[in-house]
Amino acid sequence: MTTGSVAPPLVGLVLLCLRVWLSESTGARASADDDVLLPYAHDHGPSHSHRHVRDCLSVANGKTTYETWPSSSRSGLPVAESTVFVSDLSDSPDRSRWVYGHMTVVHDPLRTLSVLEPGGAGGCEKSHRVTVEETAKAAGCLYAQNAGFFNVTSDACLGNVVSDGRMVRDSGGVQNAQFGIRKDGSLVFGYLAREDVLDEFNPFVQLVSGVVWLLRNGEVYINQSLKAECDKITDQEVFREFVEMQSARTVVGHDARGNVVLFHVDGRSKERGMNLWEVAEFLKKNEVINAVNLDGGGSSSFVVNGTLASYTADQCKSDSRWRCARPVSTILCVHERRCEPSDCSGHGDCTTDWLHL
Amino acid sequence: MTTGSVAPPLVGLVLLCLRVWLSESTGARASADDDVLLPYAHDHGPSHSHRHVRDCLSVANGKTTYETWPSSSRSGLPVAESTVFVSDLSDSPDRSRWVYGHMTVVHDPLRTLSVLEPGGAGGCEKSHRVTVEETAKAAGCLYAQNAGFFNVTSDACLGNVVSDGRMVRDSGGVQNAQFGIRKDGSLVFGYLAREDVLDEFNPFVQLVSGVVWLLRNGEVYINQSLKAECDKITDQEVFREFVEMQSARTVVGHDARGNVVLFHVDGRSKERGMNLWEVAEFLKKNEVINAVNLDGGGSSSFVVNGTLASYTADQCKSDSRWRCARPVSTILCVHERRCEPSDCSGHGDCTTDWLHL
Repeated sequence: MTTGSVAPPLVGLVLLCLRVWLSESTGARASADDDVLLPYAHDHGPSHSHRHVRDCLSVANGKTTYETWPSSSRSGLPVAESTVFVSDLSDSPDRSRWVYGHMTVVHDPLRTLSVLEPGGAGGCEKSHRVTVEETAKAAGCLYAQNAGFFNVTSDACLGNVVSDGRMVRDSGGVQNAQFGIRKDGSLVFGYLAREDVLDEFNPFVQLVSGVVWLLRNGEVYINQSLKAECDKITDQEVFREFVEMQSARTVVGHDARGNVVLFHVDGRSKERGMNLWEVAEFLKKNEVINAVNLDGGGSSSFVVNGTLASYTADQCKSDSRWRCARPVSTILCVHERRCEPSDCSGHGDCTTDWLHL
Repeated sequence: MTTGSVAPPLVGLVLLCLRVWLSESTGARASADDDVLLPYAHDHGPSHSHRHVRDCLSVANGKTTYETWPSSSRSGLPVAESTVFVSDLSDSPDRSRWVYGHMTVVHDPLRTLSVLEPGGAGGCEKSHRVTVEETAKAAGCLYAQNAGFFNVTSDACLGNVVSDGRMVRDSGGVQNAQFGIRKDGSLVFGYLAREDVLDEFNPFVQLVSGVVWLLRNGEVYINQSLKAECDKITDQEVFREFVEMQSARTVVGHDARGNVVLFHVDGRSKERGMNLWEVAEFLKKNEVINAVNLDGGGSSSFVVNGTLASYTADQCKSDSRWRCARPVSTILCVHERRCEPSDCSGHGDCTTDWLHL
């Protein structure tokens, strides 16, 4: 055996030790990653084409597979306003089922909302997984929560990812529910053909993929999403369970004024939290118009000024008495308005009106 | 009518407007203060003397009405470590009752823990009430939670208050359960004679009053506290209800190493959270030795780096869908080690060992 053939495993071992040492030296407790909530038995999304999605839509929605809405750009408002809820979801009056979460209304999202890669630019390419706290702290996010799904084995980011004008990952047209902001400030929710994702005339400056379009034009759109996002017989059961299960959830939507709405609820799969029907009803009642479900379960984290402000689901690896935040993939980050340089750090056409803000 | 006689109400109106404007301009939502959890029907504490408390103690504890423990001052450790819990407290296997909270272990408490007045020094004299977030942010606390009770009508701080070596308020010997740190670093839990509170040889540098000594020397001490803290027949029912009620709770204790332990659990009176028996058992199981219950209910807040990290109980005044943090009185603040000037900013004898830290 030559030295050359021994080197790769040795390098791997050294890298592994370095990784363990690095994670310990930050003082962060490790998550046991024991609340995995997956919508598909295989891959991430259906194998069928965008044409299939378009063809199976109801006549009521015409042939549009997504909705757009102009984003709010009002001046004189704080960047965002966050509210805390503790709500009783019980069906019977003698038995309470409490759910805990936050709803955050983001004004002027074109300038203040970013999809960030885990740990910062380049994180997806390196298959990094980083807690929302760490990514948010490094980027100076005022509010942040986990966004897109990731491969639980390889840690790779899944779906489409556009971060501050940079195309990080193109899913190749997989038909998951999308949330994006285009260069002109329009908010986009729904199913996109690959040409839409790659559009160069009015490109996406932020884009991330979820699973299940929860609300469309103010109405619950879960049954239609089930049809659009799920095809294989083997996946149907898994997918339906994903929708029906009480769990921690993370969602992005918008209201009538064009504010982006971030929503999360704490929970643990099969134990606490909300199923997607309950989430959709909650958002509808709170005047959200379009909303897309993002990664939930043990990934769900809500962070304010770099500090975890939610109760995460995973147990800590070192001590199961406590709960630990899971390292995740992309996040949604609400930050101060960015309007320099002229492309506003990838935030699209935001020089207009800047002087009036 | 002269101008002079009109002036006071006008001044009052102007001050009121100023107060409303100031509270609105901070962007903070107002709490409806609707989860009031009071241990006494009248006043704050029993009318009997310290001698009465001493005389009614069991022989097992001798005539000592409080416990002292040397505080930890280990070097090389972070200031504190905080853990999140989500625990099932249900009695039957088919019905879950989840409680959410944090437990924070504070190393080297003599140098890193302060009792702070609401809004900073002078807050008690001015009967200020300020959210834990605001007081903690201004003082640079790493972790903070609400501490002593306050008068819900006049907003005055109640009980004994010593903050960073300054005697802010002397309760006049009222027999509530106390938590304090003396100049030499000893941690004190229990009932104090007025001479103990005013001791000049080894004075308290931090002191705050709670209600109910939960754990004494590792054993639940609630029944004994009920005897010691409650005497009038009319108060007994109120006091017992205070102990038995599910609610949000805030507690301070210590472990065998002399670390101070901060504990809080979210809840709302009669609806969610823990009763004091459950809190005492939880702390005992987690190796806490002495512990005193502090103000709970709508006052309970846990703040990390100036950010609210718990779910508060009160509804928001403006919109009952959401929960708002209540402005409160004193807080417990965990901060970076303070060892300059020579009295360590009121933190007692902490020059020793400083060079070795």
